[in-house]
Amino acid sequence: MTSDGVSEQDFTLDGVPGALWSPAGAAGGRPLVLLGHGGGQHKKGPGLVARARRLVTDLGFAAAAIDMPGFGDRPKSEQDQRFLAEIAELRAAGEPVGARIASYQVARAGQAIADWQATLDALAGLGYPGPTGYWGVSLGTLIGVPLAAAEPRISAAVFGLAPHGPLAEAAARITIPVEFLLQWDDELVPRADGLALFGAFASADKTLHANPGRHADVPAFELDSSVRFLARHLTG
Amino acid sequence: MTSDGVSEQDFTLDGVPGALWSPAGAAGGRPLVLLGHGGGQHKKGPGLVARARRLVTDLGFAAAAIDMPGFGDRPKSEQDQRFLAEIAELRAAGEPVGARIASYQVARAGQAIADWQATLDALAGLGYPGPTGYWGVSLGTLIGVPLAAAEPRISAAVFGLAPHGPLAEAAARITIPVEFLLQWDDELVPRADGLALFGAFASADKTLHANPGRHADVPAFELDSSVRFLARHLTG
Repeated sequence: MTSDGVSEQDFTLDGVPGALWSPAGAAGGRPLVLLGHGGGQHKKGPGLVARARRLVTDLGFAAAAIDMPGFGDRPKSEQDQRFLAEIAELRAAGEPVGARIASYQVARAGQAIADWQATLDALAGLGYPGPTGYWGVSLGTLIGVPLAAAEPRISAAVFGLAPHGPLAEAAARITIPVEFLLQWDDELVPRADGLALFGAFASADKTLHANPGRHADVPAFELDSSVRFLARHLTG
Repeated sequence: MTSDGVSEQDFTLDGVPGALWSPAGAAGGRPLVLLGHGGGQHKKGPGLVARARRLVTDLGFAAAAIDMPGFGDRPKSEQDQRFLAEIAELRAAGEPVGARIASYQVARAGQAIADWQATLDALAGLGYPGPTGYWGVSLGTLIGVPLAAAEPRISAAVFGLAPHGPLAEAAARITIPVEFLLQWDDELVPRADGLALFGAFASADKTLHANPGRHADVPAFELDSSVRFLARHLTG
């Protein structure tokens, strides 16, 4: 499907559904950004598609997204269902859920990492990647940090909205440039835990952008900033 | 003096030396940014002049700077000299000096605020201001925060590299958009004190940019970001 100069191509790799956005009529040989969706979202959530289109139209990059295990068109395991029931109970009791979500998603990130790596392998066959970036906050960071720690093809990343605790070991192995988003009044990630994750990256080139508001309130101007950050590190 | 399309005009107001940068051949009627210099610097320090020229060439704005009391071409009082001797002794003894510098400069900010307000009055007679911004970190923030709290003509500000303590009362009265710079390894401003100052601004629209490195190591890309921030808030 092509609209406004952006081609959107669906794919399925070993049962993992994904999508690739690129300039209409163009082939590989251009920077690629992997877009990690947030919790409750999927490979074509509206925020994610907006980011993909900006990368194509502003920078001439390509962008790819896949459904994470248990999200979008992928089935929820019995373990996922038990976990969701547990979260619903915690919420009903007015208990905080952020730390539990983070530890659960990081503990099972191995499958998501393998899926992303298979996606990268397949896209290499289509002329991608050249320089590869990653962009994902919240769930996209719970999976993205261990992915970037494991995957040398990723050379710059936008992360954020996630705590240090379960990511401590992976974060300490991150040396690529990072732009990190933090919400000052995040109801899921205590401020000190988000700041500690930023502090833990071993990257010499890392930058923290913090804004007032809750978990979902990242201001629109940060999209512009993330595009510029990826342009700066994946071109020239 | 005019170079590369930028006019630089010196002035003196009641013994306060200053400079105004504007597009060559242009008159007032454009946004104005007040540039507060850092400690040990003056109205034409190289970093400050670079910022002034960017505002003129990128945005068509005007920019103004004045020497703060005791800096540049303005005499040091006996009190200033005693203070500098005290700081030299603290440094020689390996003691931290940031908190002492901050409390001293904020305590005597009244004169600097009066000087900035007289400058604004005079520039109004030259067709300025329309929308007015402020840009100053370190000493530029120790003076700029109480200035912006007192001066309704200032409608957006870039601050940073300063602690909460002596600025607490003024910061709580700031409601304009603020972009705030923090150095993660600042040897003069403990991290928690810088974060607390960001937290204290009453502005709904405020954004924190933190980067690794010491007090003087603000990365060059933050200059680009500050220009964009001021463009966003001072133009239509």
